[in-house]
Amino acid sequence: MLTAITRLLGCDLPIIQAPMAGGGDTPELVAAVGNAGGFGFVGAAYLDAEQILATARSVRALTAHPFGMNLFAPTAPPRDANLDAIIARLTPYYVQLGLPPPSRPTAPSANAFAEQAAATIESGASVLSFTFGLLPVGIVASAKARGVKLIGTATTVAEAIALEQSGVDAIVVQGSEAGGHRGTFLGDFAAAQVGTIALVPQVVDAVSVPVIASGGIMDGRGVVAALALGAGAVQLGTAFLTCAEAGVAEVYKDAILCAVETDTRVTRAFSGRPARGIVNRFMAEIDQATDAIAPFPIQNALTRVLRSAAARQGRAEFLSLWAGQGVRMARHLPATELVAKLAEETRAAQVRSAL
Amino acid sequence: MLTAITRLLGCDLPIIQAPMAGGGDTPELVAAVGNAGGFGFVGAAYLDAEQILATARSVRALTAHPFGMNLFAPTAPPRDANLDAIIARLTPYYVQLGLPPPSRPTAPSANAFAEQAAATIESGASVLSFTFGLLPVGIVASAKARGVKLIGTATTVAEAIALEQSGVDAIVVQGSEAGGHRGTFLGDFAAAQVGTIALVPQVVDAVSVPVIASGGIMDGRGVVAALALGAGAVQLGTAFLTCAEAGVAEVYKDAILCAVETDTRVTRAFSGRPARGIVNRFMAEIDQATDAIAPFPIQNALTRVLRSAAARQGRAEFLSLWAGQGVRMARHLPATELVAKLAEETRAAQVRSAL
Repeated sequence: MLTAITRLLGCDLPIIQAPMAGGGDTPELVAAVGNAGGFGFVGAAYLDAEQILATARSVRALTAHPFGMNLFAPTAPPRDANLDAIIARLTPYYVQLGLPPPSRPTAPSANAFAEQAAATIESGASVLSFTFGLLPVGIVASAKARGVKLIGTATTVAEAIALEQSGVDAIVVQGSEAGGHRGTFLGDFAAAQVGTIALVPQVVDAVSVPVIASGGIMDGRGVVAALALGAGAVQLGTAFLTCAEAGVAEVYKDAILCAVETDTRVTRAFSGRPARGIVNRFMAEIDQATDAIAPFPIQNALTRVLRSAAARQGRAEFLSLWAGQGVRMARHLPATELVAKLAEETRAAQVRSAL
Repeated sequence: MLTAITRLLGCDLPIIQAPMAGGGDTPELVAAVGNAGGFGFVGAAYLDAEQILATARSVRALTAHPFGMNLFAPTAPPRDANLDAIIARLTPYYVQLGLPPPSRPTAPSANAFAEQAAATIESGASVLSFTFGLLPVGIVASAKARGVKLIGTATTVAEAIALEQSGVDAIVVQGSEAGGHRGTFLGDFAAAQVGTIALVPQVVDAVSVPVIASGGIMDGRGVVAALALGAGAVQLGTAFLTCAEAGVAEVYKDAILCAVETDTRVTRAFSGRPARGIVNRFMAEIDQATDAIAPFPIQNALTRVLRSAAARQGRAEFLSLWAGQGVRMARHLPATELVAKLAEETRAAQVRSAL
């Protein structure tokens, strides 16, 4: 199944494992996907330069196939927020897990992103993908100089055009069905919730770089649909989260395997930025007063310890259960088998739809 | 292109023109779609029994091909609302169009739906499709006795299962991208906004009746995608609204042809029930205080004269501009040519995706 994307990535199948920046995409998962003929991404947004290099070495030890790293593009500094009030609001959850209240987060160093990007480019990853915006021009130039391919994330046609003009090699089109953070960086988050079946062809018509479809794709039917819409590949997150190799808590996998299509919602409760996940107690309660949520990345920092403890203690009600709207189709398989099944289903669906 | 749906409907192509209950689906449009090999629906929800019979005769005079009629299933009586305050809020818009304020709507007769359904079953339409709920069992029985096929509308898997259990012959699956009224009848409207690429396969897995995909499908790429997802046909509304035969105001067609994918939103401003349309002044202003919108169908009755006058006067800012998220793909063609193009694009995309 050769497409513009498989040629760009150097893999056999147009099947990409989405970066999941929360420990889901372990080196074992990324390597298994690559070894099975797909292409895996490490979500490196919360890693520092040293961790990025170490993670790349771990992946490299498990596979000779290429892989990618994903970062969050730099965003505007957060607006001021009443942190004392927000910490007071979050403290009861910390108490319930036997933790001290969260402390005021320290501002990230001004150089943090440049260091992450430099490490990614040096790491041996063949692709740097990113979300939340555009890359600084210096980083685009240095990636290109080292032969590292660049893939940006768009939730609207206007974002896709801006990414193409910035020099990316391909674009991930993120439909409204997608789990996890919305990549929106131009205009309004609510208006930029466009379904995959509508968004992909409109982006394909507007740009000349190849397009990767994401959002709601869980099996071979979705792969064939995305290719028919004009995408050169698909990127799946939720489908890989329930793989044996995925590094998330068992209660999180269980939540995905039990969820139905109406169980997810877009929330700012966990990170301060809109993201789709399975509704749980924390989300439902914090979403009651969205003006009392700190902006990204402060809210994310304020809930980090809570989420880690909830994962360790198996308390799904306090965990960010990122997942897309295709949850009923989730399967509990090793990643190698999932990729093989996706490829097999894709071929079968292609034969059926050609009849 | 034979599918379970084309066999059920007796048409050549798996392409259905959606009912549009606002004058869009003229007898000329419905007949042109049928004559071109597709299947057209008359949106009859706002017609009385006599108008339903007359419209069916008009369609029959223009085509020997089968066609369908669509009704709104009966819904619970609206909750009480402060109508004086709502009328006061709407009056300035009436004044701007040189109209007297809206009067308090009279309650529809208790028999209205039964009369509509009886007329539809007698009308010569071969299919009765419906949205907003389930049909009363007596109407299901009388349609079946007359050989009229029944098609319900689902926005969730649970709704699809309820429809199948009620005895329908097929189900329209309405993804969140779709323009016009949301068909949701079980549970929360917001949770039931699931994208087509995620919703269709999950419904297909849950029911055994054939499924029709709708929401965001505008050209052959969308048709092939929907068939790959497991649908037996597609239903397109927005794509047909800009046809020469569609009976909507030119300013409405122009608004669709100029809109982009982020221009639509789900609103209760026009009818009291959530529906997707292009954001305009009326929607933006009335959505500021959604608790001051009367429940369906009262709000619909209160804005009807305003919308009709706005259409006559070419004032798009006061018109319900129902449209889906695929608007950039809209084309201004006669319906016969649109159906032929959809069929041709579908065949071309099928060949490409089988490579």
